[in-house]
Amino acid sequence: MSVKVTVDAMGGDYAPEEIVKGAVLAAREYKIPIQLVGKLEKIRAELGKYDIKGLEIELVRADEVIEMGESPSSALRKKRNSSIVIAVDQVAKGHSQALVAAGSTGAAMAASLFGLGRLPGIDRPAIGVLLPTMDKPVLMLDAGANSECEPEMLHQFAIMGSSFSSAVLGVENPRVGILNIGGESGKGNILAQKTYKILEEKQDHLNFIGNVEGREMYMGICDVVVCDGFVGNVTLKVTEGVAKMVFELFKSEINKSLLAKIGAFIAKPALKGMKKRTDADEYGGALLLGIKGTCVISHGSSKAFAIKNAIRLAKESVEKDVNGKISRLYELSKA
Amino acid sequence: MSVKVTVDAMGGDYAPEEIVKGAVLAAREYKIPIQLVGKLEKIRAELGKYDIKGLEIELVRADEVIEMGESPSSALRKKRNSSIVIAVDQVAKGHSQALVAAGSTGAAMAASLFGLGRLPGIDRPAIGVLLPTMDKPVLMLDAGANSECEPEMLHQFAIMGSSFSSAVLGVENPRVGILNIGGESGKGNILAQKTYKILEEKQDHLNFIGNVEGREMYMGICDVVVCDGFVGNVTLKVTEGVAKMVFELFKSEINKSLLAKIGAFIAKPALKGMKKRTDADEYGGALLLGIKGTCVISHGSSKAFAIKNAIRLAKESVEKDVNGKISRLYELSKA
Repeated sequence: MSVKVTVDAMGGDYAPEEIVKGAVLAAREYKIPIQLVGKLEKIRAELGKYDIKGLEIELVRADEVIEMGESPSSALRKKRNSSIVIAVDQVAKGHSQALVAAGSTGAAMAASLFGLGRLPGIDRPAIGVLLPTMDKPVLMLDAGANSECEPEMLHQFAIMGSSFSSAVLGVENPRVGILNIGGESGKGNILAQKTYKILEEKQDHLNFIGNVEGREMYMGICDVVVCDGFVGNVTLKVTEGVAKMVFELFKSEINKSLLAKIGAFIAKPALKGMKKRTDADEYGGALLLGIKGTCVISHGSSKAFAIKNAIRLAKESVEKDVNGKISRLYELSKA
Repeated sequence: MSVKVTVDAMGGDYAPEEIVKGAVLAAREYKIPIQLVGKLEKIRAELGKYDIKGLEIELVRADEVIEMGESPSSALRKKRNSSIVIAVDQVAKGHSQALVAAGSTGAAMAASLFGLGRLPGIDRPAIGVLLPTMDKPVLMLDAGANSECEPEMLHQFAIMGSSFSSAVLGVENPRVGILNIGGESGKGNILAQKTYKILEEKQDHLNFIGNVEGREMYMGICDVVVCDGFVGNVTLKVTEGVAKMVFELFKSEINKSLLAKIGAFIAKPALKGMKKRTDADEYGGALLLGIKGTCVISHGSSKAFAIKNAIRLAKESVEKDVNGKISRLYELSKA
């Protein structure tokens, strides 16, 4: 049976145009059924632009939209008919197997948590993101769901990250590290030190490689890195900020001389190749791990290409049974 | 009277060769007296390589060296004749006005704190580093001295950072932000939220602009950014890691085709210009702010160029009376 993915058609800076377009691309490329949730007339107008004959695209009505600036908890209470609430409900009722949302991250997280619940043994769901490295991408979690964390939560993040990395990314025995400011076991803040002790004890079920510093992480020395959601979110945004700065500085230097412009023009395929290797849209979105269900949260600025890839990520997470793997690893770690 | 700077000649990956070379360059370029502390025969052998006639270079004997791997506190207790301890002692006794050290950061910090003491009103000294942005560099503190921080410490970091930015970098009314994961006042962890309230109240003495996210920081929207030393150190190393990754990926893409190689060769001056704009060595080192004295801590991998610039930074910090400005701003903030 093929996986059905529900997409919040109204969430994101380019909704519904780019969201609908991405859904059409995914339905065509992956040959899977897709549910689009939102204002029917708007979605229909977008769908009218494409040849969707033979594609399994189903519409679900939702008349409200939670905007980016709204407080997630009060918006969810007030807008029971918002696209994100109804989209989560589709998954909760078993009408589909996974959710993709590009709107407010807070709202998507809260709606999924309340609508689907947590996996057994998981105290708090976490957001996992794939960061580019010199080698394979590294899965970092938590990227922003929990600003304050306990050491046991980071242990659970390690279990979730390791499960995702092996199941979906196909990494054998994923190397798990703690994002820290030094290599030795006594380094870092109290959270990092206590987490180190827990992960050291659980060595048999997780391939714990110790502390990982920011510099080495981008060389690709580990597959999963855990940290609290504040540090993770700062790291994610610093990564984006530095990459953007380097590209912009390069452009501004190039524009200073005609010769440099010619050189850059000739080297353009290489520049494009580099951009592709550091492009977050290649992965399509972040994962909300630890809930009873599958939820991919895309960047608010996602265009069709990112949405299509997010749908693929959601589909693969279901097919590869990430949640089953998390539960089995959790059972082992209890023993 | 010109500022005399003491340099720990034995600290750093390339000590004493590159340290001595940097000191000679600085003595020549800035026409200031310099003290080199360490093993005399080794320093003399290095000095023999240069024409130092007319330069004021003074040697101070220290027979021990604290290595990078040693625990700072126990090393300082055991090695009373180490170059860093004796170098700090020179400043403490008033034989010189500032210190430059490229060895163990922990040892330099602990030695300065014990040997020179804290400025009045400062609970904990912090490490300030200059990060590159699209515009002027931003001073981030704490970059690693204090893994656990209280909100009042971040307030003091703001005072120290603002003083340094205006005194040494010549920034008028420096914009101060909190490194955070969202723009609104309620965002982030408890530390960031409480710091926001303190800085908001102190608006009259600090130009507090609110929360700053990693992405915007590199666009150059503020002059000083405060955070705890764990987040700051992660940010520093992530910045270095991402910049390095982008350059390396670019090289590897370039090497895939001859045409790209030719293009990159033509565009080389632009690439060099970009590298220069993101090169930490341009600033020469991090500042230990909040101690009664001036101390610049250079990267362990510093070569002569970085050491020379670190000496200039130390000299300017003394000349521009950063510590006097910190004390005055602190008095104002108490009122």
